[in-house]
Formats: sequence, C-alpha cells, structure tokens
Amino acid sequence: MSIASIYEPIQEGLGMVEEKLKTFCQVDLPWIAEPLNYVLESSGKRIRPVLTLLAGRFYRYDLERLIPMATAIELFHNATLVHDDAVDKASVRRGKTAVNSLWGEGIAVLLGDYLFSVSADLVCSIGNLRVMRLFSQTLTKISSGQLRETFSAYSWRQNREDYYEQIDSKTASLFTAAAGAGAVLSEAPDEAVEALKNYGHDLGMAFQIIDDILDIIGDEGEMGKPVGSDLLQGTLTLPTILLMENHPGDNLIRELFEKRGGQAEVARVIEMARNSPIVEECYRIAAGFSTQACRALEGLPENACRRSLLDLADYVLERRK
Amino acid sequence: MSIASIYEPIQEGLGMVEEKLKTFCQVDLPWIAEPLNYVLESSGKRIRPVLTLLAGRFYRYDLERLIPMATAIELFHNATLVHDDAVDKASVRRGKTAVNSLWGEGIAVLLGDYLFSVSADLVCSIGNLRVMRLFSQTLTKISSGQLRETFSAYSWRQNREDYYEQIDSKTASLFTAAAGAGAVLSEAPDEAVEALKNYGHDLGMAFQIIDDILDIIGDEGEMGKPVGSDLLQGTLTLPTILLMENHPGDNLIRELFEKRGGQAEVARVIEMARNSPIVEECYRIAAGFSTQACRALEGLPENACRRSLLDLADYVLERRK
Repeated sequence: MSIASIYEPIQEGLGMVEEKLKTFCQVDLPWIAEPLNYVLESSGKRIRPVLTLLAGRFYRYDLERLIPMATAIELFHNATLVHDDAVDKASVRRGKTAVNSLWGEGIAVLLGDYLFSVSADLVCSIGNLRVMRLFSQTLTKISSGQLRETFSAYSWRQNREDYYEQIDSKTASLFTAAAGAGAVLSEAPDEAVEALKNYGHDLGMAFQIIDDILDIIGDEGEMGKPVGSDLLQGTLTLPTILLMENHPGDNLIRELFEKRGGQAEVARVIEMARNSPIVEECYRIAAGFSTQACRALEGLPENACRRSLLDLADYVLERRK
Repeated sequence: MSIASIYEPIQEGLGMVEEKLKTFCQVDLPWIAEPLNYVLESSGKRIRPVLTLLAGRFYRYDLERLIPMATAIELFHNATLVHDDAVDKASVRRGKTAVNSLWGEGIAVLLGDYLFSVSADLVCSIGNLRVMRLFSQTLTKISSGQLRETFSAYSWRQNREDYYEQIDSKTASLFTAAAGAGAVLSEAPDEAVEALKNYGHDLGMAFQIIDDILDIIGDEGEMGKPVGSDLLQGTLTLPTILLMENHPGDNLIRELFEKRGGQAEVARVIEMARNSPIVEECYRIAAGFSTQACRALEGLPENACRRSLLDLADYVLERRK
C-alpha cells in the first residue's frame, strides 16, 4: 500500500493545497519569502492537510472551504516545527539545516509567529465560527503541552499516563482538529464529526508513538535527523518509560538525566532499548491506537475516502521516517 | 491631567479586564501559572485595552463582548513583548528580569505562543467574524514587521518612510485594532469605526515615536530598561534617522552599525543626539500625529470618552516611561 494510492481520492485537492502554500511564499517581501519558501518547500508528508481533505469528503466536498483550512493546518504545523527547533536548538530538520541554525533563533521565533498568524488569518477567512474555535482551542492545547514538556525536561519520574497526556497535547490534538475541521466544513452530521475527530486523535497517538520508536531504532539518513534526540533533550517517551518500568533496579535514564549526559550515555540507553522487547511492545501499543482509529470509522459511509483513512492507519505504523 | 482621570469613564471595565487577566493566571498548571503570573502582574499602562473600552463606549457599551476583547488585546501585546525580548536577548523589561533571562529563551518562546493562542481563543469566543478578521490581520502585519526589523538590523540605509512603515506595523497596527474592535463590538456606524481606527493608528504612531525618543533621552530608573537599546540592537529610529540626515558627513551611526559597536559607541551617538535639535524635532512630529489623532474624533458624539481620548493623545506626548 503506497502513500500515493492512499492520497488518490484527494489528489486534486492536495495539489491545490500545494499551490496555495506556494502563493504564501510569493509575498513581495524578500525577508519573509526566503525563509518561508525554505520551510514550506520541504517535502513533508502533508499528512495533516490530507486528513482534513479525506475527512471532508464524506458529505459536501467543498474545496472552497477545505483548501484554506487544510493549508492553514499545514502552515500552523510548520510554525510549531520552527518554534520547537528554536526551543530545542536543533540543527537539522527533514535532512536540512533547521531555520534557527541557518538564520538564528530570533528569525526562527519571528518566522514561526508569522506562520501562526497567516494560518489564523486563513482560518478566519473561511468565516465558520465552529472551526475557528476548534482551531484556537487546539493552539492553546498544543502550546500548553509544549510548555509542560519543556518544564519537565530531565525529570525521569514520568509514567505512561503522563506520556499519553503529553502526546495528546503535542500531536493528537492537531490531528483531531485537522479531521474535525474537515468534517465540520463538509457539513457532516454531529456523530460523523465526532467519529472523525476520534479517528484523528487515535491516528495522532499512533503516529507519535511511531515517531518516538524511530527516535530509538530509526535510520538517521532516512529520517533526516539524529537518533536519540529526545533523550539528549531530556524528554521521556514511551520506549524509554517502558525501559525504566522493565529495569527498575538499573535506571540508566535516571543517571543520564541527572548527569545531563551526552551522546555516549544516550548511545548506551539506545543500545539497551534496541536489545530489549520494549520496541515490540511499543509497536503493539501503537497498533492498538491504529485499530481504535479504524473502529471509529465504522458508522461512516463506505467509500474511497474511508478506505484511504483505514489504509492511512496502517501506513503510519509502517513508516520508516 | 492624570492617567486616572483619563481612565475614569472606563474604570469599572478596566477593573474587569484586570480580573480576567488574573483568572488566566489561575490555571491549574504550575508550569504555566508561574511565568504567566510574572508577565501579567507587571504594572504596564494597559493603554491598549483602555483604547478598546473607550472606543467601545460611544454606542452600545457591551461589556460582555468588550471585556474579552480588551483582555485578548492585552494578552496578545504581552505575547509580542515576551517574544521580542527573546529575539533581542533583552535582560530587563519594566524594571524586572525579562522572561528569557529568568527561565531561558525556550520558555519565552513557548510562553509567548501560549499567550498568542489564549488571546486568539478569547477573540474567537466573542463570536464576531469582523473582529476576528481584524485581529488575525493585525497579527500578520505585526509579525511581518518584526521579521523586517530583524532582517534589516544594522542596515543604516533607512529613511523616514521606512521608519513610519515599520512603526505602523509594529505598534500602530495593534492600537488601530484595539480601537477598531471596540468600535465594531459597540455596533458603531461604519464612519465611526473608521474614525476610531484612524485615531488608534495616529495615537500609536505618536506613542512609538515617544518611545524611541525616550530610548535616547529617557531615565533608565524610571523606564525600567536601559537607554540606547535600539542602537545596540542595530535598530534605526526617528531620532537616529534625523541625526543622520543632519550630519551627512559625519555618520557616527554608520560607523557604529558597521563595527557592531558596543556601549561606548552608543553613548557617543546618544550624547550627540541629546545636544542637537533633533529631539525637539521628533517631539514636533509626534505632536503632529497626536493632533491628527484628535482630529479623527471630530465627527464622534461629544461625551466623557471622547474627552478621555483627546486627553490620552496629550498624555502619550508627555509620558516619561
């Protein structure tokens, strides 16, 4: 199952989103156009705008409202990436030098703000109060989650519940909003809106767990970013929480966090995780969310988009980058 | 003329804004509550929310809508301050250690994002499409202006026109939105909305010119921040542009910018500016904007709020911090 076949039912819409993203880069202000272009031309998977389009295709497929919405979701997502990299002082993103490394942290902060504001303006331009509120509440949830993650960096006393809450804020909430907004704008009945929001939420949870697994077992070349970066920043994820659960007497992570260890200590933890059954356990948990996502779709009309959403839930489990 | 007497007609409303700001700090999330409280308890002049309330008192004074709007404007303003300080690596704001200095740049970025998102959510909660659009367009204008300012740092080839455009983006646009939103939410007729937006714009221009004068002639103790910080960050302002116009043969600023000079070089420029007639000339220009602001109010009903707005236009010229 290829990503192209999953995206097939909304291919035309996705092309229009790409076009709209390009027009945002064509502002007549060189100081914005250059970094904007740099960020938006990156070949991300565009999974969030795809979610908006697929979720918006069950009832009235109104591209006039769905395209700005899907574009806004992608712009907003890029804003969070740019700010996250600035906060983490990351050097690489999607195989390219991160904005903060290339132009400095100040530009990264301001470019992120610009992306936030154009995305908000785009959502406002649709003129639908319900999606606006959904969008603004999602912003708040994400930024409150990011604050918590930063304040609890290097704290090794976090459990699975904390982790689920954390990835719900930082990832699943935007997937929820992406799918929910598509549903609302296509005038889906309330139960269908709820079903698609639930799908988005569970897909987002699975997506983030896979992301966190890849930070342990991934291939740096394929992913376009270094392995072990979560640990290096003092962020606990599902694999490392399970590792601590499984080795209560030999807490390498506590040691790593307390000593603010570097690459060598991180490599030891990664080695230990790779040689344990916890990666498999994490995949099982991710698969559980993916299955739950699919189940949420049961009451929806059977069509090509539903099949795509089901396939997408498999795809996120298999991705390697 | 005291600030208390100017604020008198909206004293009750302003108290409600202060209460609402406090409730934002009482979130049950310690990692947000602490820095939030730190930022919002600062005794700023609250001039922007005051503008919303005064502009909203000419027709239907609907506090149920004006209070969230005025609060959102203040939250948003604080978001920009927190990000600006992070970008400028400022150490002091309003006489207190800046957020970035106290908690680090990462927290400052994320706290600013949180403030942005709660302000957007608050505006959305009012449910008025026109003020939402006004708000989101203002965000875009401000962040695009901030990007330009940062990209053109240390460039001494800027003239008065560039400066006016710059302060329109960074300051006058939010004053315009603050007054405009108040007018829209009070169901003012279109000409009154335009008049109040024009007032806000011109007041904002005057306000920023005075700010830039104070960065040259101000008293550090009174202002709660160091003098000469614009020059130190490579930002040209009206006084320094006039100084270059008046001394084309002896361009101390060009030298300062090209050599990335420090405190000593900045002190020389400030000395030169203080001993020249340019400060007076800047005051004259600010007074011109202030007069223009007052003129914009001519068609509005004569009442206590109009008198307050007229007095406010005088007040911004006289302020010392």
